[in-house]
Amino acid sequence: MRATLIYGAGDVRVEDVPDPVLRAPSDAVVRVLRSCVCGSDLWPYASREATEQGQRIGHEFLGVVEDTGAEVTTVKTGDLVVAPFVYSDGTCEFCREGLHTSCRNGGNWGVHGVDGGQGEAVRVPQADGTLVKLPVGEDTALLPSLLTLSDVFSTGHHAAVTAGVSERTTVTVIGDGAVGLCAVLAARRLGAERIVLMGRHRDRTDLGREFGATDVVAERGEEGIAKVRELTGGTHTVLECVGTRPAFEMGIGVARPGGRVSRVGVPQYTEGPIGRYVFGNNITVTGGVAPARNYIEQLLPDVLDGRVEPGRVFDVTVPLDEVPAAYQAMADCKALKVLVA
Amino acid sequence: MRATLIYGAGDVRVEDVPDPVLRAPSDAVVRVLRSCVCGSDLWPYASREATEQGQRIGHEFLGVVEDTGAEVTTVKTGDLVVAPFVYSDGTCEFCREGLHTSCRNGGNWGVHGVDGGQGEAVRVPQADGTLVKLPVGEDTALLPSLLTLSDVFSTGHHAAVTAGVSERTTVTVIGDGAVGLCAVLAARRLGAERIVLMGRHRDRTDLGREFGATDVVAERGEEGIAKVRELTGGTHTVLECVGTRPAFEMGIGVARPGGRVSRVGVPQYTEGPIGRYVFGNNITVTGGVAPARNYIEQLLPDVLDGRVEPGRVFDVTVPLDEVPAAYQAMADCKALKVLVA
Repeated sequence: MRATLIYGAGDVRVEDVPDPVLRAPSDAVVRVLRSCVCGSDLWPYASREATEQGQRIGHEFLGVVEDTGAEVTTVKTGDLVVAPFVYSDGTCEFCREGLHTSCRNGGNWGVHGVDGGQGEAVRVPQADGTLVKLPVGEDTALLPSLLTLSDVFSTGHHAAVTAGVSERTTVTVIGDGAVGLCAVLAARRLGAERIVLMGRHRDRTDLGREFGATDVVAERGEEGIAKVRELTGGTHTVLECVGTRPAFEMGIGVARPGGRVSRVGVPQYTEGPIGRYVFGNNITVTGGVAPARNYIEQLLPDVLDGRVEPGRVFDVTVPLDEVPAAYQAMADCKALKVLVA
Repeated sequence: MRATLIYGAGDVRVEDVPDPVLRAPSDAVVRVLRSCVCGSDLWPYASREATEQGQRIGHEFLGVVEDTGAEVTTVKTGDLVVAPFVYSDGTCEFCREGLHTSCRNGGNWGVHGVDGGQGEAVRVPQADGTLVKLPVGEDTALLPSLLTLSDVFSTGHHAAVTAGVSERTTVTVIGDGAVGLCAVLAARRLGAERIVLMGRHRDRTDLGREFGATDVVAERGEEGIAKVRELTGGTHTVLECVGTRPAFEMGIGVARPGGRVSRVGVPQYTEGPIGRYVFGNNITVTGGVAPARNYIEQLLPDVLDGRVEPGRVFDVTVPLDEVPAAYQAMADCKALKVLVA
């Protein structure tokens, strides 16, 4: 089959690889119908050291079950399923608490002999814990929105949930990438009425407004902080959907005393400014890698009945062989998020 | 009257100062019955630059109201009252949310013409919002425990509350100072059954055990982290009651995935390690300066009926003129916490 590998910064290739087969009785094999490129894929695409052996990549996919191991009971051949961006057993103490990303038997796609999502098929470890059956046919127009449950919408939702967004909280969303826009949508879904979106790409912030943003602030840094504070006095919740240190610093700056800054952009920094300002203002820093598996069933009904349309973040669709160009388009900000179909 | 001033590191003096008088109609004057020295007073005592003009110091006191301004309605001359370590109006948006430390009309004792607590009397701004009347006589044996509501017990309680301590959470308390011991007491009061106290002063950790600690870990750093993880696998909640960077690093290290590290020791660092480990494990960093005023009424009943005895953290009592020696005794770890009576 064909699958995507990353060989280093700027070097993504689609190649022939062995077809996936069941290796453990808890495995399933899924033929991929839709996958996509994630903002977090752009970090290795920007900076990974060149290697001779490529690494499989992609962690968001939905498809049809083609084969299941003897122990798999929750999905069967022919089922349409979506996979979260981390696989997990669904039974360990962390999974039971809803923190599937810390599963004792879970792991990431694309490493340690596990397939990546940007390919024609995927061997899914811990299939019972990982896969969620979708009660629709593979011809549904909802596939893009259903695919966002794998990561981007679940991640935006995680930002909103951990920040404590509700109808009583004001919200700042930092970043107009696909996660930021999904965070706007998630915050609105949880009842927030005042949502400030910080971003400078007009086409993206326009979609953000349709998703529920009430204000858009294009300024950055101290200027951006001043603008949000002028508009709101600082917000109760801040959803930091970028991952850079300046974005985190803006997050702290726009938080109201007692506020919560939730990070869902993978931090590209190791040290952060959490000294006396954060302490004196009782600002909480929360969030982290989203346990998407915990959210899929919660979010699924609203996607199925069209109350939310997170799939609108996909603005470009390419076939698998054009994935390398999709990375470059996203890196160049020419595409918001690329669907692979 | 006599009051304490700090002139620089190692230089605390008790001097004659003008008697306090009402300046605003919302002021009260309180004759101090009990005050004390705080662990946080030791930071300037360790490092403040020498000055010619001293600064009033002390932020924990209880006493008897001697005079009230025309607008003061909740306390009257003769009332026994306790003051939280930050004064506040009790009416602004932050006070109404319980975050009195961010009061729009509040402030700190000892600065900007406001008296410090380590003196014979104090002019109390925003008396209605600040002071809490105590329903006992000034001869009660409960004065030490009642005084801890001003800061140390309320601060330990803040750590426990913001970390989300309950009967379902395991707890690590970092630091066997008075705040750490009060955090143990607060965690136990909130129902925690497994409380690991990290500290190396045997007499203090012994009191910690009486307050509810089930385990004591004397090791520090990586060794201390390994020990707590061996005992508990990492705890759901961590109450960081020191304020140094190594203490915070231990806090991160002993937190379970999905755990919450609450800081109530004033950070002596500006940057902290909040990169991918914290993110990947969904660890929340919370806490901050404790809104003691919000907690006094909640904690008061348990202090009054003796269910908790936070006043046991006072191991030395001195008259006001010996406060300078009290600072030195605490700095030398010869006293846990000094009561001024």
